[in-house]
Amino acid sequence: MKKIIPSHRPLILITNDDGIQAKGLRELADFLTPLGDIVVVAPDGPRSGQSSAITVTTPLRMKVVEEREGFHLIRTNGTPTDCIKLSMNILLDKAPDLIVSGINHGSNAGVSVVYSGTMGAVFEGVLLGIPSIGFSLCNHSANAHFGHCRQMVFDICQRALAAPSWPKGVGLNINFPDSPLNGIKICRAAQGYWTEEYDCRIDPHGQEYFWLTGKFKNNEPDADDTDEYWLDRGFATIVPCSADNSVRNRNEEFASLLNI
Amino acid sequence: MKKIIPSHRPLILITNDDGIQAKGLRELADFLTPLGDIVVVAPDGPRSGQSSAITVTTPLRMKVVEEREGFHLIRTNGTPTDCIKLSMNILLDKAPDLIVSGINHGSNAGVSVVYSGTMGAVFEGVLLGIPSIGFSLCNHSANAHFGHCRQMVFDICQRALAAPSWPKGVGLNINFPDSPLNGIKICRAAQGYWTEEYDCRIDPHGQEYFWLTGKFKNNEPDADDTDEYWLDRGFATIVPCSADNSVRNRNEEFASLLNI
Repeated sequence: MKKIIPSHRPLILITNDDGIQAKGLRELADFLTPLGDIVVVAPDGPRSGQSSAITVTTPLRMKVVEEREGFHLIRTNGTPTDCIKLSMNILLDKAPDLIVSGINHGSNAGVSVVYSGTMGAVFEGVLLGIPSIGFSLCNHSANAHFGHCRQMVFDICQRALAAPSWPKGVGLNINFPDSPLNGIKICRAAQGYWTEEYDCRIDPHGQEYFWLTGKFKNNEPDADDTDEYWLDRGFATIVPCSADNSVRNRNEEFASLLNI
Repeated sequence: MKKIIPSHRPLILITNDDGIQAKGLRELADFLTPLGDIVVVAPDGPRSGQSSAITVTTPLRMKVVEEREGFHLIRTNGTPTDCIKLSMNILLDKAPDLIVSGINHGSNAGVSVVYSGTMGAVFEGVLLGIPSIGFSLCNHSANAHFGHCRQMVFDICQRALAAPSWPKGVGLNINFPDSPLNGIKICRAAQGYWTEEYDCRIDPHGQEYFWLTGKFKNNEPDADDTDEYWLDRGFATIVPCSADNSVRNRNEEFASLLNI
């Protein structure tokens, strides 16, 4: 695989979990083109719900789909996290200045971040010490409109590129309501869980099968420091997230509980 | 699918990411049998590196493989996280008293927790408010020996079941060295990253393909509060982990950086 030769402009690496055909991916690349060289490395089809999954037991492949000055579009058979790893190890000669994932068709607010392939790519960037941002729109439709997000996506990425430093070990989970923006808030993820999760059916051979479905149950609908609260009120939300989920202040509690 | 009827004994739900055939899964179920009713719901083959992935675009199936009083073994075509969701929504009439994942063939210390399917199941349990523990052994071999872990696995699960309460939103990532245990330490995950990640090959048709491989680079080998440090010294390690990775103390920093 030929290395991509960087120019003197900022290098922006883009991926997503909806796959290379997704409108949100194409629009994101379009929004950011004025800011630097764009390298898009995306899965060859939907990888929603892939979290930080990596492909261990099958080989990965890449295919250059489009190539012109300042723009490369590459398809892989991997997950969003694989796309970042392949880019960093095989495709790119230097680390990107910014990793951007999305724009996801559907919310990644609340606990959805745990399952999100969009955010899996962001955490991979964070582990590699690169400023990394995931963008999602609260609309699952393949034809969703992203126009109202354009200016804010551009401004945030421009400022991230211009920042003298980026907080170590932290990425951003940014969600947009599916309506004109009332503003933007920095929040934490609303706590909750998914409920009524399966649609049970019988196949033509009499065997049961189960489709994952369900609804998000927000445990704290009135908490005004959460992303779900502000998305409901028409605000874009920014949740700073860590790839390190070690809990540092509970050692004594567990030592006592486990009698260690 | 028939619901599993609980007895009056504690109910322990077990899964893993190495698949239903794995020795580590069978030994774990064997170690814990004296403590309660055992329900094992495991993937039908290897799901290493699946993180918190969920199966969205294909239907899930379950098959009862073995069934006797106090013991059920069920195979699914899903990920470890799917196994927990299917159990909670379809199979079980009441929530388990404890969710246990593993014993993984291979370390899940350091940043491996991000990619770990073993720990994906634990985070699902944590989101549901159930005490959840992942166990891993620092040996990838299919024939690894787990005997030296037996007493500690038993003691920890017995104490978890006996605990009057469990810290909300926290699961445990427990790793064992592949040697007799010198003791046990509660730690945080060592920070680092994976390096030299791909083995590039040419297939018989002249096309490139890439196998994920690589080595863990520990950024802080001398930090004596990390799991990698103590595993290297023959200790079992316990890392308390949160499923909520929101960073709560950087809002002002990001507000200034992004000019919000």
